[in-house]
Amino acid sequence: ASGPNADIPTGIPAVPHWKLAGWRSVLNFEPPRLQPDRRPRVSLPASVAQWQQEGRVAVWLHVPIFQSGLAAVAASQGFAFHHAESGSATLTRWLGEGPSRLPAFASHQLGVAGAVLDENSGKVLVVQDRNKTVNGWKFPGGLSNPGEDIGDTAVREVFEETGIKSEFKSILSIRQQHKHPGAFGKSDMYIICRLQPSSFTINFCQQECLRCEWMDLDELARTKHATPITSNVAKLLLYGYREGFDKIDITMREFPAVYTGLFYKLYHRELPESYRNIT
Amino acid sequence: ASGPNADIPTGIPAVPHWKLAGWRSVLNFEPPRLQPDRRPRVSLPASVAQWQQEGRVAVWLHVPIFQSGLAAVAASQGFAFHHAESGSATLTRWLGEGPSRLPAFASHQLGVAGAVLDENSGKVLVVQDRNKTVNGWKFPGGLSNPGEDIGDTAVREVFEETGIKSEFKSILSIRQQHKHPGAFGKSDMYIICRLQPSSFTINFCQQECLRCEWMDLDELARTKHATPITSNVAKLLLYGYREGFDKIDITMREFPAVYTGLFYKLYHRELPESYRNIT
Repeated sequence: ASGPNADIPTGIPAVPHWKLAGWRSVLNFEPPRLQPDRRPRVSLPASVAQWQQEGRVAVWLHVPIFQSGLAAVAASQGFAFHHAESGSATLTRWLGEGPSRLPAFASHQLGVAGAVLDENSGKVLVVQDRNKTVNGWKFPGGLSNPGEDIGDTAVREVFEETGIKSEFKSILSIRQQHKHPGAFGKSDMYIICRLQPSSFTINFCQQECLRCEWMDLDELARTKHATPITSNVAKLLLYGYREGFDKIDITMREFPAVYTGLFYKLYHRELPESYRNIT
Repeated sequence: ASGPNADIPTGIPAVPHWKLAGWRSVLNFEPPRLQPDRRPRVSLPASVAQWQQEGRVAVWLHVPIFQSGLAAVAASQGFAFHHAESGSATLTRWLGEGPSRLPAFASHQLGVAGAVLDENSGKVLVVQDRNKTVNGWKFPGGLSNPGEDIGDTAVREVFEETGIKSEFKSILSIRQQHKHPGAFGKSDMYIICRLQPSSFTINFCQQECLRCEWMDLDELARTKHATPITSNVAKLLLYGYREGFDKIDITMREFPAVYTGLFYKLYHRELPESYRNIT
């Protein structure tokens, strides 16, 4: 065991949780190599020197949070955090020529909102956030949960915030913003979906929302009391409502994934059958 | 200074780098409170108890990598990693009622590819990756750099991989995939853009690509030797090439951001002037 700073030992215990994984090439991954448990101590500098001789270009270290002192040891050997989550941290050191070519960790958070339009009444569901300085009308929405599809986030967030049930129809807009406030220095992707309501009685979350109502889409498109993106998407939605949703919709199709055998969703403009079936 | 596991001290040094930030509410952020440097030691359990009494719902700890041993100390007090990058880690502990309502860290990596179509010849730029088991044709592309806009990633990656210069025209498709291989357990967003070439002599990156060529778009839309997403977007692009790009384009507009005063880019279907100017 070792402490931070000043007096950093170079020997590190080879406990099972302390995994050392060296890759020959970042483009051609090898499975991680665990240090055998028998060896009581292993010198990190000596190991790094050996991996460098073997022509490996990068080292990944996985450090459990209760052994975090080891991250300080590794830092003294040129390692840095790649990422960390709940109980463990991953550190890297690039051994190859030139700047690191290791892939970065996730760079974007994803927020999804729902523009729920009642086509019979021409009214759209809008909220005002609690605790905001600028209090314009906007579409209900929030951050996606891990592993959640875009449309599912929209439907879930709309329900949680407003009590309205709805169904995903299409993507209407995508916004990318960097150094987003609240994204911990990372970027934000914000997608607005078109949703069709299947319930109409509002029961909104008092913790998140100040107001919630069904508003005339025409009024939302004209009001000054809406965020610019809401205003713009309201105009787009009005255009679709009057002249056909096919003018504005980015629709979804499912495809088999090459590697996993699972399905993924692809969003693009509707493709006519005659083009889909070209062979 | 303290080591991992077994003998965890509860006193932590109040060095300037060891910031303790307590928030009264996750919805109403307060600026972080630094522990005054004068206090030689501060007990983390005692501080947590005090913050709880003050009604704070969450604590954020910022730990520099060289003092990582403190993360192990904090873990013994119920803290866990929120995220970490290069020289520092951020830990959190939720003090409020129910499950944590703290916003998660970035959940998606963003990959962007460019479908570069030479409208005069009807040829599109395609590559085959080196070091892949399935070697189908695909559009050149890669991960976005921090702070980089979607179209800029496409243009940069196309140039780096193929030597071809191009200009962003529109977004063609968006794919979201979870537990993506190579995304460290996170999700992947993959966007294909339509680009217009301004140079035509291929000089491709031998490290990344096995082959690179200008291929008849019609041929790419029909070939079996392409990934499913490439095949599908080739058909979409062929549709646009023959019947007008307005059928397939998701175009870009710039808007002022409410909070930062900067501009952001919004991507959606073209909105006619008559609707843009509604007031």
